[in-house]
Amino acid sequence: MTDSLPQSTGLDPSDWHGVRALSHRALDDMFDWLQSADSRPVWEQMPAAKRAELRAALPRQGDPLETLYADFQRLVLPYGAGNEHPRFFGWVNGGGTAAGILAELLVAIFNPNCGGRDHAAIEVERQVIAWAAEAVGFPIDAGGVLLGGSSMANMVALLVARRAAAGAAVRAGGVAGRGLTAYCSAAAHGCIPRAMDMAGLGTDALRLIPADADHRMDILALRQAIAADRAAGLHPFLVVGTAGSVDVGAFDDLTAAGDAARDAGAWFHVDGAFGATAAFSPRFRPLLAGIERADSLAFDFHKWVQVPYDAGCVLVRDRALQLDTFAQSLAYLEGAERGIAGNPPWPRDMGPDLSRAFRALKIWFTLRAYGADGIGRVVENSCDVAQHLAARVRREPTLELLAPVALNIVCFRVAQGAADLNRYNNDLVADVQEAGIAAPSTTTIGGKLAIRAGVFNHRSTRADADALVDGLLEMARRRPGALPLDPAGA
Amino acid sequence: MTDSLPQSTGLDPSDWHGVRALSHRALDDMFDWLQSADSRPVWEQMPAAKRAELRAALPRQGDPLETLYADFQRLVLPYGAGNEHPRFFGWVNGGGTAAGILAELLVAIFNPNCGGRDHAAIEVERQVIAWAAEAVGFPIDAGGVLLGGSSMANMVALLVARRAAAGAAVRAGGVAGRGLTAYCSAAAHGCIPRAMDMAGLGTDALRLIPADADHRMDILALRQAIAADRAAGLHPFLVVGTAGSVDVGAFDDLTAAGDAARDAGAWFHVDGAFGATAAFSPRFRPLLAGIERADSLAFDFHKWVQVPYDAGCVLVRDRALQLDTFAQSLAYLEGAERGIAGNPPWPRDMGPDLSRAFRALKIWFTLRAYGADGIGRVVENSCDVAQHLAARVRREPTLELLAPVALNIVCFRVAQGAADLNRYNNDLVADVQEAGIAAPSTTTIGGKLAIRAGVFNHRSTRADADALVDGLLEMARRRPGALPLDPAGA
Repeated sequence: MTDSLPQSTGLDPSDWHGVRALSHRALDDMFDWLQSADSRPVWEQMPAAKRAELRAALPRQGDPLETLYADFQRLVLPYGAGNEHPRFFGWVNGGGTAAGILAELLVAIFNPNCGGRDHAAIEVERQVIAWAAEAVGFPIDAGGVLLGGSSMANMVALLVARRAAAGAAVRAGGVAGRGLTAYCSAAAHGCIPRAMDMAGLGTDALRLIPADADHRMDILALRQAIAADRAAGLHPFLVVGTAGSVDVGAFDDLTAAGDAARDAGAWFHVDGAFGATAAFSPRFRPLLAGIERADSLAFDFHKWVQVPYDAGCVLVRDRALQLDTFAQSLAYLEGAERGIAGNPPWPRDMGPDLSRAFRALKIWFTLRAYGADGIGRVVENSCDVAQHLAARVRREPTLELLAPVALNIVCFRVAQGAADLNRYNNDLVADVQEAGIAAPSTTTIGGKLAIRAGVFNHRSTRADADALVDGLLEMARRRPGALPLDPAGA
Repeated sequence: MTDSLPQSTGLDPSDWHGVRALSHRALDDMFDWLQSADSRPVWEQMPAAKRAELRAALPRQGDPLETLYADFQRLVLPYGAGNEHPRFFGWVNGGGTAAGILAELLVAIFNPNCGGRDHAAIEVERQVIAWAAEAVGFPIDAGGVLLGGSSMANMVALLVARRAAAGAAVRAGGVAGRGLTAYCSAAAHGCIPRAMDMAGLGTDALRLIPADADHRMDILALRQAIAADRAAGLHPFLVVGTAGSVDVGAFDDLTAAGDAARDAGAWFHVDGAFGATAAFSPRFRPLLAGIERADSLAFDFHKWVQVPYDAGCVLVRDRALQLDTFAQSLAYLEGAERGIAGNPPWPRDMGPDLSRAFRALKIWFTLRAYGADGIGRVVENSCDVAQHLAARVRREPTLELLAPVALNIVCFRVAQGAADLNRYNNDLVADVQEAGIAAPSTTTIGGKLAIRAGVFNHRSTRADADALVDGLLEMARRRPGALPLDPAGA
């Protein structure tokens, strides 16, 4: 304790003792909260009265931190997103870890701006980018930058691809008159068309290639689409492969898609938002065969790798091209030979952000605390739990599996009990969420509304998967007006 | 303490006691570090040997958290960015606060994904956006979203402006053939041309309007440029006003620029990265006169408002248009009438990110802990310190002020002592940085390399500004081969 040091002016407290004591108490309370996740509901809806209590005019005067903390405990903490909970199966959410927590505690106070300049946080990011490259099979001197998530990581990759196709002139001249066209699976994530929109190319210039029965991009259709566009005088510049589709966890044939891109002279980008991190497991790494053909890769550390939100990453094989795409020369940001502005290039030269939190530390801590093998075991455990869930679904006569389970996502439904099964399954998902039993999400598979359970939280066990099914069946039995279930399923 | 609860599988520790104890120790160490900022060098270059120590292959096995923490203390903490320090005057960096720290400690463990869905963190963000709007004079039902920083906030605003001009068809059809042109001051931030580049419009379609002697956009030249483009059949769609230029802190005449935009039927966006938050001070709020004409505004909370990194914000007067620009309908992300997927629209419908950290809490805590008036006092104190520094520069015969000081940024130089003053001042800046005395940055004003001191840290005092000048003069005296200084300046 160094509370005898001179007090600062400005916003620093006159009483650091009080801030420290409250911080320690908050830390203990939050550890209690995390450790008791399993024994509370996955999710509880925030009551309207508490929402109303949040609403207030901009405060003119300050309140004590104790008051703020009490409000956090009362209005915010009980109504969390649920992703820390072992029975959270919705969407694609990591659950956080002790290593991530420790790193974020340090960053809360260390608080560097990681846009650039010569300081240790930038060095840590460089190391983390090299580890990311090593983990997924990219050269360790690849370009790369941390971002909020895969949506922007895919956008950055698209911009580098655009530059590769159109040359330096695209920065000044824009995209007009170039006829640039791109290709991805119809099962690709919605951030790919959004990136086409943001980049000014338009979503019509993105050809959505049909997927096969295994939800993989049809490579013959891809080649035909490219050929048709070339014949029409257009410029196919980008093929996006999906490594782990968000609906069902399918992997495109990256070797074949990469070859098609190469034959077209196009950039080959892989959206591996969560799927790329299957590479941490020797068992699932073969799913990424062909990644060596990828010019760029987008993925997140906050999903399967359990790093706290947010922590996206883009890797670009040709580092110089990434720098060409983003580096600017600005008087007030000029690099220097020595001093704080030394040691370029910086993260701001490889992406759109100048102000950046120290995301790299939580990744550095996570990879060092658990090792690549520890993350690989999380991947394998998730897939084991998913197979257990799929087996249970197959055994239950009232349940129907709606897609093959290649990885860690199980799409299924209650196949009897109502005339409108889509509406019925949608209701059941809300029922188990509102009961706090478990949190699956939904998607649509071949026109059928699917209950979608993605096993991403490292805390999820087979028992949690069983609790999800038990909860859904119980809710189905309780639902007013529901048709009687097949007694064999009881 | 709830360590008697059942242990989770996955990455949770068998010994939460150890994690808790280490976390408490780390917290105390970091508070010690923060409270002793004033007594250590602003910046210390990371030695090559320690950089080399960071380099390692991806670890296969895990290390204890104690080892990671020791490495953080040894390799990272001593080589920070310096922005917590009262004598950090470089670029535009906030210094962090106790309220921000407490919020980030909570988020480190709470860890929700704030892309969307129905949970309290989303409600907090809604409140924070309303407060942001109230603070700067936007309607409190304006659209808005938190982002990493103003670079992306300006990009989001540009995309909404593009949509306003080109209509719904721009999403599918892209920007080609629309002749869209935009306008900003030559003193505008480099992220404006970058946004034009990223959005596919190209930087050539951005007209850089000359600035006057006070570094404000020449409105007559703006109107002439718009008229010339209209005459040439182009479509002027966006005027960007600057509220607080990064070089010298100049404010464009937002009333006149807004009128010019209105007369052209163009969107009026204001980049107020730090300058917009001058609105917290009644004394400086008049600088933002005309903001009521703005269709959108980009600014950061991590600069003058001292929120920990990162915390950018965009506001859009027409909320529906922001939703039109970004909202997508995706099967696996479909909203629901009830349950976790209820209560849209969400932040992901108003910007490019689906995975998002809980940035809103640190802003909520900051505004509640200090109140708008407390932030206003920080703004006023910064400007007072800047005026003190400017007065000192004027008094020192060897120093030369290079720009008017409208706000909190002082650009000056040592005007004698070497033949090549640009090189000399650049060296002096690196000298004071490397000596750890103070951290100004540099820019170029009318071809002259300027020592740029921005007073953004709430801890900075007049004595710190004096220490900067004293340090620079001392370094000038020590510099080998320097010409003798005017004795009157000794």
